[in-house]
Amino acid sequence: MTHRRFVVEKAEIGLIGLAVMGSNLALNIAEKGNKIAVFNRTPEKTDEFYESAGDLKKQIIPCKTIEEFVDAIRPPRPIVIMIKAGEPVDQQMELLRPHLSKGDIMIDAGNANFRDTVARFDRLKNTDLTFIGMGVSGGEEGARHGPSIMVGGTEESWKRVEKVLTSIAARYNDEPCVAWLGNDGAGHFVKTIHNGIEYADMQMIAEIYGILRDGLGKSASEISGIFGEWNKGRLNSYLIEISEKVLAATDPVSGGPMVDMILDKAGQKGTGKWSAIEAQNMGIPATAIEAAVAARSLSSMKSQREAAEKIFGTQAVSFPIAYGPELNKDLELALFAAKIGAYAQGFAVMAEASREFNWSLPMPTIARIWRAGCIIRSQFLDEITSAFTKAPDAANLIVTPAFSDMVKESIPALRRVVGAAIAAGLPVPALTSALTYFDAYRQGRGTANLIQAQRDFFGAHGFDRLDGKDFHHGPWGSGASTF
Amino acid sequence: MTHRRFVVEKAEIGLIGLAVMGSNLALNIAEKGNKIAVFNRTPEKTDEFYESAGDLKKQIIPCKTIEEFVDAIRPPRPIVIMIKAGEPVDQQMELLRPHLSKGDIMIDAGNANFRDTVARFDRLKNTDLTFIGMGVSGGEEGARHGPSIMVGGTEESWKRVEKVLTSIAARYNDEPCVAWLGNDGAGHFVKTIHNGIEYADMQMIAEIYGILRDGLGKSASEISGIFGEWNKGRLNSYLIEISEKVLAATDPVSGGPMVDMILDKAGQKGTGKWSAIEAQNMGIPATAIEAAVAARSLSSMKSQREAAEKIFGTQAVSFPIAYGPELNKDLELALFAAKIGAYAQGFAVMAEASREFNWSLPMPTIARIWRAGCIIRSQFLDEITSAFTKAPDAANLIVTPAFSDMVKESIPALRRVVGAAIAAGLPVPALTSALTYFDAYRQGRGTANLIQAQRDFFGAHGFDRLDGKDFHHGPWGSGASTF
Repeated sequence: MTHRRFVVEKAEIGLIGLAVMGSNLALNIAEKGNKIAVFNRTPEKTDEFYESAGDLKKQIIPCKTIEEFVDAIRPPRPIVIMIKAGEPVDQQMELLRPHLSKGDIMIDAGNANFRDTVARFDRLKNTDLTFIGMGVSGGEEGARHGPSIMVGGTEESWKRVEKVLTSIAARYNDEPCVAWLGNDGAGHFVKTIHNGIEYADMQMIAEIYGILRDGLGKSASEISGIFGEWNKGRLNSYLIEISEKVLAATDPVSGGPMVDMILDKAGQKGTGKWSAIEAQNMGIPATAIEAAVAARSLSSMKSQREAAEKIFGTQAVSFPIAYGPELNKDLELALFAAKIGAYAQGFAVMAEASREFNWSLPMPTIARIWRAGCIIRSQFLDEITSAFTKAPDAANLIVTPAFSDMVKESIPALRRVVGAAIAAGLPVPALTSALTYFDAYRQGRGTANLIQAQRDFFGAHGFDRLDGKDFHHGPWGSGASTF
Repeated sequence: MTHRRFVVEKAEIGLIGLAVMGSNLALNIAEKGNKIAVFNRTPEKTDEFYESAGDLKKQIIPCKTIEEFVDAIRPPRPIVIMIKAGEPVDQQMELLRPHLSKGDIMIDAGNANFRDTVARFDRLKNTDLTFIGMGVSGGEEGARHGPSIMVGGTEESWKRVEKVLTSIAARYNDEPCVAWLGNDGAGHFVKTIHNGIEYADMQMIAEIYGILRDGLGKSASEISGIFGEWNKGRLNSYLIEISEKVLAATDPVSGGPMVDMILDKAGQKGTGKWSAIEAQNMGIPATAIEAAVAARSLSSMKSQREAAEKIFGTQAVSFPIAYGPELNKDLELALFAAKIGAYAQGFAVMAEASREFNWSLPMPTIARIWRAGCIIRSQFLDEITSAFTKAPDAANLIVTPAFSDMVKESIPALRRVVGAAIAAGLPVPALTSALTYFDAYRQGRGTANLIQAQRDFFGAHGFDRLDGKDFHHGPWGSGASTF
């Protein structure tokens, strides 16, 4: 194969790491008419991949050595690294570096923590090379047929990869779901928040499922039907669609509903947690995401939950509202309202990150590239795109003109559903967090005046006055801190 | 003064940093019969401090140079550093180091992030010196007359300071509120969680205050009276006591209640946030603490809240339960139940940290040293001490025999109060988080089976079966990930 490099056209892009995600991404790139060079640490994997590529073989240059691989790509070379996140990425970068030349771009397409991405970007800052951190959402199917792609790096490096990435991205109304979002860690940060929102979205669906199953005695197939109906309305989204599907599936072993046989311990890979931590770091409330991450953690404590159920029983009273068209509508609207709250929190976190990290994250663009390809894709994101396009400086999604009307319409339903679930003792932590977020957010005069008084009492922290007058400590008397 | 070092008895301990907390701690140490050497970067401050020490002068050795200061302390020398947390502590340590000798102990008594404490401890690991990270709670009054002290470091270094610290700590039934909690960062970690719980405790009180003020139209002085009554019962605690006091105070400017004139923007210094982040890092739900931190952040967004109130109005309906002895009792019990939830979360976070950092944190001891001196001191902590002493291996505070009975008694009241507040549109995020935590924790069969099905559908994450059989992917059909 050695003579190849002299005769064939150079590849537009290279890709290292041919596990499922990498293979799928490579096939997607090839299928869209881009020539791609591929490399894997184990050469057999490269052969295997190439042999299974069928008609796409002509677009693929399989390489056995790093030298051959690098040489096969048109400079300046964009090289996608799609391997296990963390340490292995740094090792791969070090192996690659000596072979690269001016303007080459190493692209981490894994689920990196954006702080690692910033560090990697900075490490290459005063060299000839540069780095892109690229969030890719959509799972294996997305990688193969059209993911949502969030790019962070220099504008120049983006220009080099724009054409290829645009060709492989998912499309919504013919608009590609890919964008350059800003410098260094911007892409991976936005991907992290995407995943945090995904956690909240999934948890809220699970809570509504819990009300239907445990509060209203509905079977998996009945609930599947309900989600199927909702998927035709304002909740239309990939997650509702697959909820309908998984609830309809039959367990080949027992013959009953598949979901009823699945252990209720949810796994997590870290991005939900990262988004909660970054929100905390910046002091922006993301309580619906936090509730969702906490719910996954609690789910994994199965034996503790079983022990506690023996002590406390599982429910308080039966669900206080009978199932019928009215409650069905309320549940749908409640989920919608809670979803608005979770997305509002996620976007508020990104707005603050944009200020803190100097990214100028474009909110309408982020919503736009999430409309297809990714796990949270939905009609709803088209509405967010439009709301932020019309009101780019809105302090929060819920106060945009478009959404404030939806909030007014749907919050009463969320209030009724949460109230009923709470009375019944059914756990609805994420739905509730979205509601209490709204209730706190629209309270002009809050209760933190009492907290400030307490803090001044025991720690002489001082306070501001409502009337702006200059009197900064309370006349608390004995026991209070002096100042 | 130079001849002094030859004639006077050496000091038992040294202290650097004579701002309010440092001065108060030094006076406390001196008052309890311990000789103390003090040093401040600005010598005038040292003079000032010494001159104002009155009868305690004879216990104090004021020093103008580091040499003089170090020489004045009996080796091995424990030296308390009580300055601004962060970088300045490292700088002070570097300045001090060349003057120290074998076995000397630098003690950071500020509000350090325990990860910094671990790093400082490790940096001295292979030297002759060692480091103690010491959490001190109780504000200025506590520092002066008896704080709660949480010590992390080697057992040997603890032995050197045990006597002095025991003499200055707060006492509860004559038991000193100080303990060695484990290696390196153990003391500062426990202090961080203490502060996280403090945030939750204060926020829950503020939410009940909000119900009384906005839902039931009670005046500050009426609410003060209610808290005063409660302080005689199961809620008896410092925070309820000072709530009664601050609500009773009159504003010297307007003549009205002081709290009514305080701006409802609460500050935060980071420890609440740290405790939420560490809980997230370990995957242990601390939703009541997170809700409290989020509430402070939301409080600071005053102008956003005012704008949102203009759009959405401030309340849904009037509070659905009339005020009377029954509701009064319910509010008291609700606050108690929520408090149990918040403390249960905090202790669960510490239990996990103990495993993760190899500290063997002694839960009954932690509860014991929080009973007096610190901001969250209360009768309640005596009950926690006793519950953990009887059931040291309990997975969670709420399943200890003593607390499970209290939970059974009080949760129904929390359920009623939260339900009513939610119906009325009053924000009760922390109270609600405690309730939904309980409801999720005692649910043996949760809803994460749906989440696992979704994750398997889009990401081929796999799942376990309830029957333990070996079938790890769902028969999802078209659109699902392959595996």
